[in-house]
Amino acid sequence: MTSKLWGGRFEKGLSNISAELSESISYDVNLYEHDIEASRAHANMLATQGVITKDQNKNIQSGLDTVLDEFRENKIELRPELEDIHTHVETRLGELIGEDAKRLHTGRSRNDQVAVDTHLFLRDRIEEQITLILELLSKFAELADQNQGKVWAGFTHLQIAQPVALSHYLMAYFFKFKRDFELLEFSRQECNVSPLGASAMVGPNYNLDRFDTSKALKFSKPYENSVDAVSNRDYQLSYHFFATRLFIHISRFCEDIIIYNSSEFRYVKLGDAVTTGSSIMPQKKNPDICELLRGKSARITGNLISLLQNLKGLPLTYNRDLQEDKVFLFDTTDQVRQGLLGMVEVLNNIEFNSEAVIKNLQRGFAPATDIADYLVKEFRVPFREAHEIVGRLVLHCEESSITLDQLSSDTLKDIIGHEVPQKITQIESSIERKQGYGSTNSASVKEQLNIASEFLKSKSN
Amino acid sequence: MTSKLWGGRFEKGLSNISAELSESISYDVNLYEHDIEASRAHANMLATQGVITKDQNKNIQSGLDTVLDEFRENKIELRPELEDIHTHVETRLGELIGEDAKRLHTGRSRNDQVAVDTHLFLRDRIEEQITLILELLSKFAELADQNQGKVWAGFTHLQIAQPVALSHYLMAYFFKFKRDFELLEFSRQECNVSPLGASAMVGPNYNLDRFDTSKALKFSKPYENSVDAVSNRDYQLSYHFFATRLFIHISRFCEDIIIYNSSEFRYVKLGDAVTTGSSIMPQKKNPDICELLRGKSARITGNLISLLQNLKGLPLTYNRDLQEDKVFLFDTTDQVRQGLLGMVEVLNNIEFNSEAVIKNLQRGFAPATDIADYLVKEFRVPFREAHEIVGRLVLHCEESSITLDQLSSDTLKDIIGHEVPQKITQIESSIERKQGYGSTNSASVKEQLNIASEFLKSKSN
Amino acid sequence: MTSKLWGGRFEKGLSNISAELSESISYDVNLYEHDIEASRAHANMLATQGVITKDQNKNIQSGLDTVLDEFRENKIELRPELEDIHTHVETRLGELIGEDAKRLHTGRSRNDQVAVDTHLFLRDRIEEQITLILELLSKFAELADQNQGKVWAGFTHLQIAQPVALSHYLMAYFFKFKRDFELLEFSRQECNVSPLGASAMVGPNYNLDRFDTSKALKFSKPYENSVDAVSNRDYQLSYHFFATRLFIHISRFCEDIIIYNSSEFRYVKLGDAVTTGSSIMPQKKNPDICELLRGKSARITGNLISLLQNLKGLPLTYNRDLQEDKVFLFDTTDQVRQGLLGMVEVLNNIEFNSEAVIKNLQRGFAPATDIADYLVKEFRVPFREAHEIVGRLVLHCEESSITLDQLSSDTLKDIIGHEVPQKITQIESSIERKQGYGSTNSASVKEQLNIASEFLKSKSN
Amino acid sequence: MTSKLWGGRFEKGLSNISAELSESISYDVNLYEHDIEASRAHANMLATQGVITKDQNKNIQSGLDTVLDEFRENKIELRPELEDIHTHVETRLGELIGEDAKRLHTGRSRNDQVAVDTHLFLRDRIEEQITLILELLSKFAELADQNQGKVWAGFTHLQIAQPVALSHYLMAYFFKFKRDFELLEFSRQECNVSPLGASAMVGPNYNLDRFDTSKALKFSKPYENSVDAVSNRDYQLSYHFFATRLFIHISRFCEDIIIYNSSEFRYVKLGDAVTTGSSIMPQKKNPDICELLRGKSARITGNLISLLQNLKGLPLTYNRDLQEDKVFLFDTTDQVRQGLLGMVEVLNNIEFNSEAVIKNLQRGFAPATDIADYLVKEFRVPFREAHEIVGRLVLHCEESSITLDQLSSDTLKDIIGHEVPQKITQIESSIERKQGYGSTNSASVKEQLNIASEFLKSKSN
Repeated sequence: MTSKLWGGRFEKGLSNISAELSESISYDVNLYEHDIEASRAHANMLATQGVITKDQNKNIQSGLDTVLDEFRENKIELRPELEDIHTHVETRLGELIGEDAKRLHTGRSRNDQVAVDTHLFLRDRIEEQITLILELLSKFAELADQNQGKVWAGFTHLQIAQPVALSHYLMAYFFKFKRDFELLEFSRQECNVSPLGASAMVGPNYNLDRFDTSKALKFSKPYENSVDAVSNRDYQLSYHFFATRLFIHISRFCEDIIIYNSSEFRYVKLGDAVTTGSSIMPQKKNPDICELLRGKSARITGNLISLLQNLKGLPLTYNRDLQEDKVFLFDTTDQVRQGLLGMVEVLNNIEFNSEAVIKNLQRGFAPATDIADYLVKEFRVPFREAHEIVGRLVLHCEESSITLDQLSSDTLKDIIGHEVPQKITQIESSIERKQGYGSTNSASVKEQLNIASEFLKSKSN
Repeated sequence: MTSKLWGGRFEKGLSNISAELSESISYDVNLYEHDIEASRAHANMLATQGVITKDQNKNIQSGLDTVLDEFRENKIELRPELEDIHTHVETRLGELIGEDAKRLHTGRSRNDQVAVDTHLFLRDRIEEQITLILELLSKFAELADQNQGKVWAGFTHLQIAQPVALSHYLMAYFFKFKRDFELLEFSRQECNVSPLGASAMVGPNYNLDRFDTSKALKFSKPYENSVDAVSNRDYQLSYHFFATRLFIHISRFCEDIIIYNSSEFRYVKLGDAVTTGSSIMPQKKNPDICELLRGKSARITGNLISLLQNLKGLPLTYNRDLQEDKVFLFDTTDQVRQGLLGMVEVLNNIEFNSEAVIKNLQRGFAPATDIADYLVKEFRVPFREAHEIVGRLVLHCEESSITLDQLSSDTLKDIIGHEVPQKITQIESSIERKQGYGSTNSASVKEQLNIASEFLKSKSN
Repeated sequence: MTSKLWGGRFEKGLSNISAELSESISYDVNLYEHDIEASRAHANMLATQGVITKDQNKNIQSGLDTVLDEFRENKIELRPELEDIHTHVETRLGELIGEDAKRLHTGRSRNDQVAVDTHLFLRDRIEEQITLILELLSKFAELADQNQGKVWAGFTHLQIAQPVALSHYLMAYFFKFKRDFELLEFSRQECNVSPLGASAMVGPNYNLDRFDTSKALKFSKPYENSVDAVSNRDYQLSYHFFATRLFIHISRFCEDIIIYNSSEFRYVKLGDAVTTGSSIMPQKKNPDICELLRGKSARITGNLISLLQNLKGLPLTYNRDLQEDKVFLFDTTDQVRQGLLGMVEVLNNIEFNSEAVIKNLQRGFAPATDIADYLVKEFRVPFREAHEIVGRLVLHCEESSITLDQLSSDTLKDIIGHEVPQKITQIESSIERKQGYGSTNSASVKEQLNIASEFLKSKSN
Repeated sequence: MTSKLWGGRFEKGLSNISAELSESISYDVNLYEHDIEASRAHANMLATQGVITKDQNKNIQSGLDTVLDEFRENKIELRPELEDIHTHVETRLGELIGEDAKRLHTGRSRNDQVAVDTHLFLRDRIEEQITLILELLSKFAELADQNQGKVWAGFTHLQIAQPVALSHYLMAYFFKFKRDFELLEFSRQECNVSPLGASAMVGPNYNLDRFDTSKALKFSKPYENSVDAVSNRDYQLSYHFFATRLFIHISRFCEDIIIYNSSEFRYVKLGDAVTTGSSIMPQKKNPDICELLRGKSARITGNLISLLQNLKGLPLTYNRDLQEDKVFLFDTTDQVRQGLLGMVEVLNNIEFNSEAVIKNLQRGFAPATDIADYLVKEFRVPFREAHEIVGRLVLHCEESSITLDQLSSDTLKDIIGHEVPQKITQIESSIERKQGYGSTNSASVKEQLNIASEFLKSKSN
């Protein structure tokens, strides 16, 4: 008798390469806890419904206890000919409790088994990551809080654009990652639905109670349609998308930090905990962790694309192509955990150097806009004209290799055609002159910190 | 004097190829309505805040009226040297109302202008598509309703698996597209936030009221952080993801239909409105619209990837790379509209052929599971054994080239070892034997139709 | 003293998560043979150049012998704190031979080490796969040869279009995979260049002979530019592209076979070696291997995208992001091996059912084009008119539920308006009527088989 | 009578949305020259073979002359109901010459028509781009030649690593783009094969001479297999891959330049021809062209993915999904042209600032490796020890805020434990100390320039 779950009508077995292609136990062993958890709920429900007896269920439950322990203690040998985690669990259960084990599969199929395992696995990962992403958000808010009053450089086109409060810059990332948090919650909701009891695709020939298993497994509800339940991969797609967008944000932040960490910028100093050296150039202090995190955005996107291309044009309902969805899911859930922890570690090991920034803001003619706006406000110069006037001023400075704050009042007046206070060429005052909700001035930053604090409090219970 | 918004300090202009690379008016002209709408709101607010006078505002508003009309009547010549839609609008305004036009740009930047235009544009598209996707959902529900009682084939691995109610099959897609609807609502929420007033990135030097413009433009709120406001593309990403997942579903449905429409299956018949012929093979009736829709999933995924790769590793805040985000957005919003309308058209022009399906269900040994389950229930045969017994039965049929319902009672009993009613080998009874919430039996289908009807009612106001 | 290669100036070590992110030994252990092979060549060259003594080299070589054996016998414990394969090899060498081990790294850097290892690894995989792809090509040619004279169905839009020789259909894939072979050879050439001796990026401070190591490692030449040598990933990209295109072809073939294997088509019969069953539906004989292979095209594309997105916008020369290139490379080389072996296995286990095809060709009105062409040739009817006439004929057949060969001569003449021989409505004659180079007639097929045979002979030495 | 090529058996037309989805004339009008060119060759061959008369051919040729002129003069109205370029040409031809026009389509199908048009179109673009990429290569070689002797900074991890000759840095890109050139030539070869005469897929019912049309259209040969000919998109894939890899290189170079152009680096100065300003910050001189080019790598990758996902799992032979391949092809060929011209423009408008680089090389402790190597060579210190010693030296400098060349001889000796010449801490000598083929010393750079010059000469005829 063959060991596979479906061997009945087959005269010959799979060839070697087919077996190699076919096995998934080398990776879906990751699901053992969730496979057993779902089997428990299924057996309990079968007993409640009278499909199996209480005693049979008792045997099954206690057998599953043992199987779980054995997996945890690494005592189960993985056998490729048993293909997947479901067969491993069931086979071992059979060895332990005999005949009764065969009743466990009543009314279910590998199609809903693999679906329920994957839902449970992903939901657990999502819940862990909800905590991790909240930690990252707290870290950004904390850093923004601690660094109030410090000057930072706002860039567009990697050109110094305008002075910005360091806290304001950090809070920009807070709000980006906050959207990722909301996306993760959306993804959790899509994941938190029970496919168990859909059987192969049309429902079982037994009077199963899907609300019972759904509740036992803490799902919000069972899928409304069994065909949808076994063919659906949307909950995985939305998680992959969450992960991809999260890493886009991570990659942008890391790019910032890598540039700021160059010896030409020296805007930040990274601690030893997140930097490494070179085997041949002893002076290097490389922002490796930031680079690794930036690079991972590529890996994560690759996984999203893989699942998308896998699903494209697949007829309903289950097709074996989908076996590999777990490869992408296991990898991405791992990477997201690393990514979130890695980001917190970077934030724990970073110092911001405002002095270097201020120096460069002047070298980058940052006060230019302020001068233009002064002309508009004080002398009713139309903005477009003011912009051109200041453009000429900058050209003059560049040709004379000086910064705006080094211009004499006379030259200023000469080129501009109006008297302006020299103070306007100082960085420090520019930030506070910015007005309105969401702008960089210190009151607005405090407002943002309050929003962050309220949000974090609301999520902390 | 140069016509560009930023020309002041530049001695020479762009070279030809640079100008060609730089212009976006050839596509961002699409934004003219939204650019003018946002300019109106900005000017009104400037007047309310006293930054410009009421008269200046009146001039601006009436000038913008004219510009809008001229765009609508196709009277504005697009000039690549004016680069983008913002410059075209402002330049034309200047020609019409003179000096006052220059005051419109007070306190804003192209960075927040392009952001607000794109938010407005996308929100409009989303709102149209919310309607379209609801129409598609209604169509699926209507078809499912009309086809109650009809038999369909459930496939796994493109092998006949089990009989399924046609309505149940259709409702599986209803629930898939319903998730897309929810994703689109999520995306709408992310899009419905006002960047206006963020100015270049740190907020303006003027006392602007961002709540005023946000309200005037019907946004739910202004962005809390100006740096985030101008660097954010998340709302576009989540829309692209919605579109990609939507088209994954479309591609799966179309693949089904293309296969069902083959002369070997003949499960469906497509009307002339959605089929075309061959230039050389007169007998062909090709499911072109389904193929085109399936193919579009590739184009849509490409656009998602394009934006992801564009954003990957971009330092804050604005970088010119982002100019091309609109290329992807305009294309995908167009394709989604076509995709949703195309799907409704396909559903309007399809006939389902249950007779052909039933014939093939027998050829595909579909009643096999039912026999196995009968053995389990009536004779307490463990499922695994029943599965093997029926496996042998199928092998016998295959070798004798008959279907299960053509087996004599004697042969049945002979191979199975138990007496089973021949009725169990009929397709028609199999569907109703399925039990439990979400399964294919007719009561469950009715339940699903009720859920659909409640949902559609709740969204129709 | 720290065990890392770069620890000198660091006061504190990496944090836990940083170490987890940083290690690559869990996957780059795959490179141990190539790392040792390259180290041997480097040490030999150092000795020849007089940078180290002959005795030192002897010690190093014999130490590396031992390290290699230990790796092969699985005796080397992998230690994450030793980060990568290079450090593992060098550390173990130091334990074995002491001081001399430290001289091995003279004039090289991890940058050129990782580059040379990866080039060697990939070149080996490519060479294995050149053999595998030739086997696949032989298999297609062999099948085409054996099946000469058999009728097959040509599809467009998954609609029966025209009769085709089965051999012609199979040879179409031969030529597709032949292009992949050529692409793989191109990729091999790009891979067969030696980066060793580029050192960190600008070349070494020692008089190394890069031609010596290049020759010893059987490369065609050293890179002409050291900066290019360490920053180049083109050879990986072209391999990933080869793999992706290969799997596109595989996915198309597998899609064909999966459809042909459905119980509605029954055009092919797949052997037990490449099919599996269902855990709940005993009658299923699923084309799992074809599905798995089709699905893998997604995984492979994902890896290509991952490397592309990783490299996008990376400044020169080495950045830590690139550490993950090996993750994609190891996976894709594995999958390609499985894919090629899997394809051969499918071809070894397939039977083609011409009878079913012929029956369906008639059901699909396949002789229609032949009738139209007959009208053109015999009665000088302009093609467009002939096409319309036959269009009406097909419509008539469809309405009467008959096939073209079932039409009486009278009806034929009636609708067409000309006398045509009934033979023209037979499938068998249609294939031989096709003319010209590359068409489906049997002479052309023989010509293709000759081309294939010449090609395979030329590559077999 | 319907105007479509396939309308015969259809009773009703396409619905509006179907027509909108179905039309391709809005973009495939791009192919008019190539469609007419292929039609000419086909008609000439038909005449030579005696399938049409000489007079009929004369009429057709002269009619096609007129149609071509009318397209060039923009006199042909595009009509969506005529769907595609092929129908437009044939319809107009019919209006001009009557009956004979109908004979042109003899023995061909839209399948081979669209294939041959696309091959011709792409081959033309490739040939133009071969010239453009050679210009880019010349430009890099020229700049490298002119800048011999200038110092540049070698980066790893965006950290100053080692001094490098500016010419060596530029030649690294030369060799990268040279590989792209070779890939483009490979792609040209795959594109230069004639599908004409494959007809719908199995060859024509007429005695066509495919070698005749292949030669007339300057292809290297006809496809050996007609089914392959109409289903093949490999030549497009390899072109898309070329474009993607090209833009990866462009994106890396542009990233370098954008960073070097920041006010913190000031390593390069970009001319007005490739920079633009800000609408609100008059001091900005943004590297927009570099950013746009970097961003385009995303768009190009998106197009590659789109075609890959479109083709994935498509059954043979033609499916309507493929209509959109042209969307991706037209866009990518356009972008490549812009990309190559844009790169040349950037190189024409760049100045390199070696002085700033040298200053930063000292700030980045670039001579560190040189000191370590000196210890190895002069005092036989094992490299690993030397590396650690210099690591401590760097730590000392960093704590004292000095550069290596500012260390006194005493301190040097003190920390190092050996007497080293202070000269070794100077940048200038470091470059020339590098040895071996492909390294950064001036002799090696000259060697590279010779290779480049030979290569360019060999390609210039």
